[in-house]
Amino acid sequence: MTVSKTASAGSDKGRKEAADDAAGEGTALQLGELSELLGYSLKRAQLRIFEDFLRCVAPLQLTPAQFSVLLLLDKNPGRNQTEIANTLGILRPNFVAMLDGLESRDLCTRMRSTNDRRSHMLLLTDKGRSVLARAKKLVAAKHEARLNELLGPANRTALLSMLTRIATEF
Amino acid sequence: MTVSKTASAGSDKGRKEAADDAAGEGTALQLGELSELLGYSLKRAQLRIFEDFLRCVAPLQLTPAQFSVLLLLDKNPGRNQTEIANTLGILRPNFVAMLDGLESRDLCTRMRSTNDRRSHMLLLTDKGRSVLARAKKLVAAKHEARLNELLGPANRTALLSMLTRIATEF
Repeated sequence: MTVSKTASAGSDKGRKEAADDAAGEGTALQLGELSELLGYSLKRAQLRIFEDFLRCVAPLQLTPAQFSVLLLLDKNPGRNQTEIANTLGILRPNFVAMLDGLESRDLCTRMRSTNDRRSHMLLLTDKGRSVLARAKKLVAAKHEARLNELLGPANRTALLSMLTRIATEF
Repeated sequence: MTVSKTASAGSDKGRKEAADDAAGEGTALQLGELSELLGYSLKRAQLRIFEDFLRCVAPLQLTPAQFSVLLLLDKNPGRNQTEIANTLGILRPNFVAMLDGLESRDLCTRMRSTNDRRSHMLLLTDKGRSVLARAKKLVAAKHEARLNELLGPANRTALLSMLTRIATEF
C-alpha cells in the first residue's frame, strides 16, 4: 500500500482527495458515524463532566469516584467494602486502592465487622464528613449550577431520567 | 470495570433499614444525592452501554474505543497518530498500545509520513475494513436498535443532542 502526500484542504474537493489516499494535516477530521453513536457521545460528555468536576473540587483534591464513595459512606454508615464497591460498580482491586488513599488522608476508616471477622465495615471520619460537606457545596455551586444553566432545568431532568433508564433497564 | 445491578435494587423497606447506623447486610444501599448527580448517572449509563457494546460485538473482539479508531481511520485515511488520538481524546501512551493491538491483528497499519519522518500515518488494512463493516452491522442491528427501542427515536435524538452539547459547550 502506498501513501502519497496530498493537499491539505478542508473543502469537499480536499476531502475527496483525502479520502482517496492520504489526507492533509491540520484540517479537522470527519467524525462520520461516530457522532451518531450514543456510546461515543456518552463517553465524551462524561469525560468533559469529570474534567469540570475535578476543576471545581480541586481545592479538596477529590475525584468523582472518591466523592461518590464519601457520599455513599455518609448515607450508609457501617456497610462493608463489597457492598459499597458493588453499588458503585467499582472493581475490588481498584476499590481497595481507593480506600487506601482515602484512609491515608483520614477521610474514612475501615473496621473489622463484628459479625464477620473477614469483612471490613466502612465509616466516614469527622474529617471525611467535613470534606464531604465542603465538596457538596463546591459541586452544587460551581459544577451542577453551570450544567443547569447550559441545559435548562427541564432538559436536565429529562437527561437524568434517560440516563438512569439506560443504566437500569438497558 | 463491571457494573453491578445492586444500585437499582433498592426497595423502600431496605432503604429505611440501611438508614439506621450499622445497617444490615444484603439490603440495598441508599444512593442519596448520587442519584441526582449528572456525572454519576452519565458514568453508569456509559458503563452499561459499553458493556452491551462488548457483548454485541463479541464475535469480532472489538472494544468501543477500538471501534471508534477503525471508524475514524476509515473516514480519514492517512492521518497521523496524533490527529486520531486527539480527535478521540485518547492519551498518547494508551493510543500507542491500542494501535499495537490493532496492528498485530492486521486491522490497521502505521506508515512513516513522507513529509515528516517522525510522524506515522494510519491506514485501515483490507481486513480492517472488512471487520469494521461487520462490526457496524452488529452495532446497528443489536446495540443501537435496542437503545432506540428503549428510548424511542425522539428521546434518542434529544439525548444525543444534549450529550453533544455537554461535550462541546460545557
